[in-house]
Amino acid sequence: MSEISINSERLLGRILELGEIGRDDDGRLTRLAASDTEKLGRDKFVSWIEQAGLGVAVDRIGNIFGIWRPAAVSDEAPLMLGSHIDTVINAGIYDGCYGVLSGLEVIETLVAAGFQPSRPIVVAAFTNEEGVRYAPDMMGSLVYAGGLDVDAAHATVGTDGTKLGEELRRIGYDGEHQPGFIRPHAYIELHIEQGPVLEREGIQIGAVENLQGISWQRVTISGDANHAGTTPISMRRDAGHAAALVITFLRERARNSKTPTVATVGCMSFEPNAINVIPSRATFTVDLRDPDEDRLKQEEAALEAYLAQLAKEEDVSFEVERLARFQPVAFDGKIIELIEKAAAGRGHTVRRMTSGAGHDAQMIARIAPSAMIFVPSLGGISHNPREKTQDEDLVAGANMLLDVVKQITGGGV
Amino acid sequence: MSEISINSERLLGRILELGEIGRDDDGRLTRLAASDTEKLGRDKFVSWIEQAGLGVAVDRIGNIFGIWRPAAVSDEAPLMLGSHIDTVINAGIYDGCYGVLSGLEVIETLVAAGFQPSRPIVVAAFTNEEGVRYAPDMMGSLVYAGGLDVDAAHATVGTDGTKLGEELRRIGYDGEHQPGFIRPHAYIELHIEQGPVLEREGIQIGAVENLQGISWQRVTISGDANHAGTTPISMRRDAGHAAALVITFLRERARNSKTPTVATVGCMSFEPNAINVIPSRATFTVDLRDPDEDRLKQEEAALEAYLAQLAKEEDVSFEVERLARFQPVAFDGKIIELIEKAAAGRGHTVRRMTSGAGHDAQMIARIAPSAMIFVPSLGGISHNPREKTQDEDLVAGANMLLDVVKQITGGGV
Repeated sequence: MSEISINSERLLGRILELGEIGRDDDGRLTRLAASDTEKLGRDKFVSWIEQAGLGVAVDRIGNIFGIWRPAAVSDEAPLMLGSHIDTVINAGIYDGCYGVLSGLEVIETLVAAGFQPSRPIVVAAFTNEEGVRYAPDMMGSLVYAGGLDVDAAHATVGTDGTKLGEELRRIGYDGEHQPGFIRPHAYIELHIEQGPVLEREGIQIGAVENLQGISWQRVTISGDANHAGTTPISMRRDAGHAAALVITFLRERARNSKTPTVATVGCMSFEPNAINVIPSRATFTVDLRDPDEDRLKQEEAALEAYLAQLAKEEDVSFEVERLARFQPVAFDGKIIELIEKAAAGRGHTVRRMTSGAGHDAQMIARIAPSAMIFVPSLGGISHNPREKTQDEDLVAGANMLLDVVKQITGGGV
Repeated sequence: MSEISINSERLLGRILELGEIGRDDDGRLTRLAASDTEKLGRDKFVSWIEQAGLGVAVDRIGNIFGIWRPAAVSDEAPLMLGSHIDTVINAGIYDGCYGVLSGLEVIETLVAAGFQPSRPIVVAAFTNEEGVRYAPDMMGSLVYAGGLDVDAAHATVGTDGTKLGEELRRIGYDGEHQPGFIRPHAYIELHIEQGPVLEREGIQIGAVENLQGISWQRVTISGDANHAGTTPISMRRDAGHAAALVITFLRERARNSKTPTVATVGCMSFEPNAINVIPSRATFTVDLRDPDEDRLKQEEAALEAYLAQLAKEEDVSFEVERLARFQPVAFDGKIIELIEKAAAGRGHTVRRMTSGAGHDAQMIARIAPSAMIFVPSLGGISHNPREKTQDEDLVAGANMLLDVVKQITGGGV
């Protein structure tokens, strides 16, 4: 078969068109899961699926599927492509949407080329990947993979007091299919990197071989509020100072490590938060990530040991609350190799890499061999209107996806 | 003259009685400057002044004076005793009130004993020492000492949108006297320590020889918000981490110093304050105090130099805003000696010390020789319902004040 390529004009046009849906009067793009604006995005995606002549299916958690099921292979387990089309608040236009629209583009391209796949091909848009309105994030794929009961997911109360199940019904996306109704032969997700590595190294394609384990904890350190002027340094039980020591400890540990471990303290609050009062309490979050589960556990243990040491040295007490914990996910080696070959075949530079962010692929990996393809994010910026990937990189990534899909559904994997 | 002592029952009773004025339904004591509850406290104080047979005077900034001016010495410059009766929110009963009521108690005791002073004796309650409702704090004494124009003070808008001048008129305490109308021969303020030093050392009386200079600054550090999972440690511009380094820098500097310098970071906020986003901005306050102006300037310079170093090392930028700056105040050596002698005379332990907090005495020191007497605060706690000084210490402090007043107005100073 001669080389075929995706229709870049159609793909780029749809990314821009979907990116206009859900903008407010100030031009800010927001399509929170199961909201009115997200309904409009869903409707647009469904219209494109139908336009392409594919079947549409929606499951009970609102995941949308565009299904190409040629009669000759209708009994085979489908190859699934996908991502999500919900966004954060004041979002960019690429996160999630790029993968969903590229999946559709690949199928349309193959249909138009008269390609005869060895199995059905499905593009999926999973519900509530961002987790901004309803927690946890990656909910639609989690439910789909059997990791969360759909009724429990329906009962989730959002930041606005709504229930997800009721909102899905209200916007007409409470489908009839049971989550997991299509058990994929394999799953591939194309996504912007959302980090600076590819751009920094001048590499066009990332073959994502694993996804970091994530540990989220909230730490509360308690000391004693006292007068900033009258309390000698030696008598202070300063929760704010203890929190600062934790931040510098985590940074030094990550900096001196030869591993890809990252640690971030993103949230911080002091009490009573008065200029002339020594903080009695500091509450902060710790985000630890590592692609290796043993190392992630070591980092958690090191933090715990340091907190215990601090409690003695600084005469403070502490509490730790676990907010979220995901084990690292290893993606499928064979698909990674196909991605590398596809990159070589088109003359693109490629490197294996770790995903620092969470993605639907980590959930679907529970039920099918999975992998991801990354393209560069300018400045590593994401979850931000300045999120940007160059058009040529977008097209290159979609062609990678096309070539890998051809390999899997033509040659077999 | 034989030894006389204050009426401890009357003094302690009045402290408790004033401490009940301004409690809300939950029992929280709050008498913010020029508020309805503070008016009730003022009325009570005035009634006690009148009951003692003293003259009452109120100046334009609402400072209240109880004046004992025997005819034989009416032309002499008065000795002034005083403090304040406004409180913070959810306050204790001793801060300020103890000094005002002890001043009145000393005068009443001397009147009853037939003491013939060499000069008039005045007790003052200065307006808005706490500065909670209207800024700055110590406003009444600042205006009295000529450091702030009375009309400007009247125009001050409070946290509740009111103007101080209008509120003083509304509660009937916009007096006719010009602030500064009584130029004191000397000023003595008796106060709870509001710190832990006396209790820790088991000493009953503090002879306060100076008052720390105070430097308040707000520092804003700016970096770059980025994804906590995808941004390598080496590529981070983490404003939160830079803020933590400032806290540990200040602490190490204060800890290693042989001086009484104290540094406190009491307020802290991160932006965007999200668990999985590297902080783009950290805003915090720095409270530096030292009884020596040159050292205080050195500490300010050291902070500035460290911020400049951080800006390079951590690739962040910073802004510094000056919020408040008071130079250290040295109190009058002769009065300090009289306090030490008085303590020795009554068999109390005494030490010279520095006031870490600001007090009306630091303002009145601009126009008259001044000094302060401290008594222990249990646990160093203040600005808190748990603020407590033992009755015997309260009585001891008031008798110190009595003895020093006797010395100054009998023997001369």
